[in-house]
Amino acid sequence: MATLGAELAHVAAGRVAITVPIGPHLSQQDGFLHAGVVVAALDSACGYAALTLMPADAEVLTVELKVNLLAPANGDRLLAEGDVLRAGRTLTVCRGDAYAEQGSERVHVATMLATMMPRRAG
Amino acid sequence: MATLGAELAHVAAGRVAITVPIGPHLSQQDGFLHAGVVVAALDSACGYAALTLMPADAEVLTVELKVNLLAPANGDRLLAEGDVLRAGRTLTVCRGDAYAEQGSERVHVATMLATMMPRRAG
Amino acid sequence: MATLGAELAHVAAGRVAITVPIGPHLSQQDGFLHAGVVVAALDSACGYAALTLMPADAEVLTVELKVNLLAPANGDRLLAEGDVLRAGRTLTVCRGDAYAEQGSERVHVATMLATMMPRRAG
Amino acid sequence: MATLGAELAHVAAGRVAITVPIGPHLSQQDGFLHAGVVVAALDSACGYAALTLMPADAEVLTVELKVNLLAPANGDRLLAEGDVLRAGRTLTVCRGDAYAEQGSERVHVATMLATMMPRRAG
Repeated sequence: MATLGAELAHVAAGRVAITVPIGPHLSQQDGFLHAGVVVAALDSACGYAALTLMPADAEVLTVELKVNLLAPANGDRLLAEGDVLRAGRTLTVCRGDAYAEQGSERVHVATMLATMMPRRAG
Repeated sequence: MATLGAELAHVAAGRVAITVPIGPHLSQQDGFLHAGVVVAALDSACGYAALTLMPADAEVLTVELKVNLLAPANGDRLLAEGDVLRAGRTLTVCRGDAYAEQGSERVHVATMLATMMPRRAG
Repeated sequence: MATLGAELAHVAAGRVAITVPIGPHLSQQDGFLHAGVVVAALDSACGYAALTLMPADAEVLTVELKVNLLAPANGDRLLAEGDVLRAGRTLTVCRGDAYAEQGSERVHVATMLATMMPRRAG
Repeated sequence: MATLGAELAHVAAGRVAITVPIGPHLSQQDGFLHAGVVVAALDSACGYAALTLMPADAEVLTVELKVNLLAPANGDRLLAEGDVLRAGRTLTVCRGDAYAEQGSERVHVATMLATMMPRRAG
């Protein structure tokens, strides 16, 4: 995510938001952000949100994810929000929503459900 | 859904809620509602929510659905809510959330993402 | 599944097949099997397939499932096959495929990915 | 995918395979390929597989995808296979499977279901 210019915009218990600037290097010829970047940003937001509720020495692993792409992402930046729906001992279920922002306008571009799991750092 | 005793609890443009009584006939030996009933209730709530934004003569078809089961469903009744996230000409994307209710307590038992499609009545 | 007239057609380690007769009681006005029945049959086939690789006293719990409905299901019977793709200590991932059969013809009507988890009886 | 060093390994009607070399630039500290790379490779293999059955001037759009990560991906290269399960006029449903290969050994690292849609080039 660092190579994408991603930044943590918000961190709270069970909730993380990430922003990614939408520039030509991540976009297709038509100016839209690659779907892969949207998916990666949502996966990261969900993973970090899960991590906020895990033991301090845990790393987080994506078990499975599902994403619906709702609209093409163009504009100034992508906002990816991850929320924990259920934090279990073994499995954490998260919802992610991504928005393309341009000035004060915001378009809902994708939604995700993901299951995360802690992995003890080795 | 009729055989499950399901009732429409709320209908608005892009939003439908269904309730299903939790009784012994739909439950497993341990008193929990069958996961299949939860999935069917969410699928119905999402389908009806999509239908509220489709032409009057359309029927609705589930293209795909994904559900995460968050907690066992027991109590007095199941509440399944469906919301349209995106209503396109061809595809409608919905989110569904199901809650088990007992008195004033409510537990989030499942969440769904589903893609719906209109089908002209034949 | 018993009330659906479902029968186990095949059981092997990591692989289970279930058949469901397609009759008027499970079908819509147009003669097609309800999507909910297809999903329930696939969920059962996947759950039983996972169970074949779990400890003898375990029960199986569906963590999440995703299904794509490929074609309407009509004909004589539904065949739902479940296969374990990965059997872990905690999580078992299964693939399910459902076919509508009429005489010697077979149509692929749905495909599923599901995550299962053991639950100790009792 | 070009920046990942991805190559088309196989193209046939309804079936495409892509390989991605597993090197330090795409891997985490622990030597495993980033999950995002696995997802992107599967999405590409599925998209190209769908494209082989679409009109010549069509581009392909991912409507939704779901992936289960089965094992960490390390070794020499990643092989991502995409297969069309159903090619409709509007929607094409694909299955993708990814394998990490090292010498003659092969590990199944991820499986995907995805829905694709044609978009006329504009």
